[in-house]
Amino acid sequence: MAQELTGNLLVAQSGGPSPVINASLAGVITEALQYEDNIAEIYGGLNGIQGILNEQIIDLAAESQQTVRALSQTPGAVLGTCRYKVKKQQDFDRVLDVFAAHDIRYFLYIGGNDSQDTAAKINALAIERGYALRVIGVPKTIDNDLSVTDHCPGYGSVIKYVAATVREIALDNTAMGQHDFVSILEVMGRDTGWIAAGSVLAKRRTALLEDAPHIVLLPEERFNQQAFVDAVQNVLRKQKFCFVVASEGLLDPDGNFLGADATRLDPFGHPVLGGVGEYLRTLVEQNLSGVKARAAKLGIAQRAAAHCASLTDVQEAFLVGKAAVQAAVAGETGKMVVLIREDKDGNRDVYSVQTGLAPLESVANSVKHFPAAWIGEDKMSIGYQFGKYAQPLIEGESTPPYDAGLPKYAQINGERVERKLETYDTSK
Amino acid sequence: MAQELTGNLLVAQSGGPSPVINASLAGVITEALQYEDNIAEIYGGLNGIQGILNEQIIDLAAESQQTVRALSQTPGAVLGTCRYKVKKQQDFDRVLDVFAAHDIRYFLYIGGNDSQDTAAKINALAIERGYALRVIGVPKTIDNDLSVTDHCPGYGSVIKYVAATVREIALDNTAMGQHDFVSILEVMGRDTGWIAAGSVLAKRRTALLEDAPHIVLLPEERFNQQAFVDAVQNVLRKQKFCFVVASEGLLDPDGNFLGADATRLDPFGHPVLGGVGEYLRTLVEQNLSGVKARAAKLGIAQRAAAHCASLTDVQEAFLVGKAAVQAAVAGETGKMVVLIREDKDGNRDVYSVQTGLAPLESVANSVKHFPAAWIGEDKMSIGYQFGKYAQPLIEGESTPPYDAGLPKYAQINGERVERKLETYDTSK
Repeated sequence: MAQELTGNLLVAQSGGPSPVINASLAGVITEALQYEDNIAEIYGGLNGIQGILNEQIIDLAAESQQTVRALSQTPGAVLGTCRYKVKKQQDFDRVLDVFAAHDIRYFLYIGGNDSQDTAAKINALAIERGYALRVIGVPKTIDNDLSVTDHCPGYGSVIKYVAATVREIALDNTAMGQHDFVSILEVMGRDTGWIAAGSVLAKRRTALLEDAPHIVLLPEERFNQQAFVDAVQNVLRKQKFCFVVASEGLLDPDGNFLGADATRLDPFGHPVLGGVGEYLRTLVEQNLSGVKARAAKLGIAQRAAAHCASLTDVQEAFLVGKAAVQAAVAGETGKMVVLIREDKDGNRDVYSVQTGLAPLESVANSVKHFPAAWIGEDKMSIGYQFGKYAQPLIEGESTPPYDAGLPKYAQINGERVERKLETYDTSK
Repeated sequence: MAQELTGNLLVAQSGGPSPVINASLAGVITEALQYEDNIAEIYGGLNGIQGILNEQIIDLAAESQQTVRALSQTPGAVLGTCRYKVKKQQDFDRVLDVFAAHDIRYFLYIGGNDSQDTAAKINALAIERGYALRVIGVPKTIDNDLSVTDHCPGYGSVIKYVAATVREIALDNTAMGQHDFVSILEVMGRDTGWIAAGSVLAKRRTALLEDAPHIVLLPEERFNQQAFVDAVQNVLRKQKFCFVVASEGLLDPDGNFLGADATRLDPFGHPVLGGVGEYLRTLVEQNLSGVKARAAKLGIAQRAAAHCASLTDVQEAFLVGKAAVQAAVAGETGKMVVLIREDKDGNRDVYSVQTGLAPLESVANSVKHFPAAWIGEDKMSIGYQFGKYAQPLIEGESTPPYDAGLPKYAQINGERVERKLETYDTSK
């Protein structure tokens, strides 16, 4: 039995938002309320670790129950996130100072790889200092590239939206009565092709050749210009139009991003992507005479489309939030909640998940690539095995309430907790 | 009382699809069934006028009632459309030959400006030849740029989706905790800014300055680079991020399309657009140091997003289809159905529409621009008058049935009607 630990809980969100990151927050708040003997106050840190450094803390227990319930269907990240990378020792020291000042004993960090790395370091420092703290990571990334967990909350909703969009655009393409047309959809995925692959759920059966998308390009396979042009031509010989879904992170044979502006880097030093769709459009029109192409780029819309979220995904996001609180109260620390797919009653065709825990170190800074075994021999198609994996993740509709014809999303009051420390300058 | 006319009805769809063009088709089919004394067969022409020239005709009465009902929630255009421009006299002659061969006495054409022009010419030729025919146009264009009608079926659904997307992306932008960020959304609108303007419905109140979108750029106003950069800077002084919605058809002061590839023309000789978003992104980053920008381009997704359609729009699209049949049976010809907004019981705040008729000639080839009086003094904002006009058009949700996590859309069987004429070569 773990030692009883009494104090306050702090939850924060980090990295890019997802359609369900607020559902995880709702799960944390809802569950934390159940442990009044252990958890006195339920605090939220604004803007991830950056806000914690600046002691920007709000009282989440003061939010209305109505608001907390509505969080599960609200996109964005109501606490705010950051892409600030904690590197300096003084930053980590400051985090523990803030925790001590507010008697934070439970720290839950909802985020992706980089965030779980930060959580691991905070946990290590607390142990080193002998500061009693339980740190649990809550997985979140639309990219689905966290290792250890079967899949990541956020992913199911994004591919539901992407697949619905592919199906809808394909109906438009079909209607246009125009042959030799290429439709290109650029989707997110800097390092991995999970999102692009998810678009194949638009097919009525995963392996159906005639249904869109016809070509799927993942960053896991280096882009081969000639093979691509040949594949497009091959599709156009049999189909009315050719539908291409491409990950933003496609690499040319030399390992450079296709259509990326190499001069722009994000704060982690990754290049800012976003030109693959237009690049492919130009390539097609220049290499195939008489062929017309159009590209669309969903951009941030795809990770914010809560109006088209997966109910399964929303429920799992809530579940991992709850599980994180349960684990922390039970004495766990330095772990991330993971989703484990189970055979239900020995029936492999019935989808069921349970939560588990994995060491933060095993998650941090590693990337789960799209399995090579699920990529077709042509390097531009997705095998049926993926359909079995991904189909359950998009099941069920989470429809937000509508007001005046538009989705009505939650807003938090954000009642500030009084500062107890001197201000801190993160730029130093 | 109009003369009784007995024969077959032919309905076809033309131009770019919309989320509700199939709802108008469903309205036509449903109403046509009511007039068995006048209308013997209900035929559909595939691929607009091009399919009619090629005698590609299907039997719509043979479709199941289930299918016809599901059409109202299916995007694309199930009959197929075309962008073929009928110019040659022999094409018009052929149309009448096909009509005579199949005893077509009622011709309903669902489409935009160009299509109504074609319908007007077919009507004129039938009168000249003494061929008894009733031609009624059914308005359809997401661009909302048809004159005479208060608004066009299709528009309400597109701006509902665009406004929902703006609201969702804005929540993501808010969460990112990053100042000096510019979010750019490129939307359709070659000649008019109706769709871009519709994005302001995302604001909780139309005139609310702090809510996204902050800057709206319409083709009705020539793009002023310095004024735009200044406006972005001004927004960033007060707000966390600046949200820009731009029409694809923006013109520079010399009247050239911004970011367009001048070498690509569609079959009507209009340039193929699609670079405004990236153009503005680059402009912002080059002119405002330290400011980051991201662009998204919804492309065809915005006119196919039936999963987010407006119930009002779907119902009105169905209504104009019905009204077209009623008008034709009542003896009208050479007219297009229009939507007329009415004061309900003298109360201007209650939205109500009725259908009416306008001569096809008054519709064809004219463009209804976004009213100058509704554009703000800064030329980059939209007045509250537009909100009163547009808000009713997005009310109500038309949710399609879902199957396996994705919208399930109707497919027609398309039972072919036997050809009666020699084949015809449209390329000659």
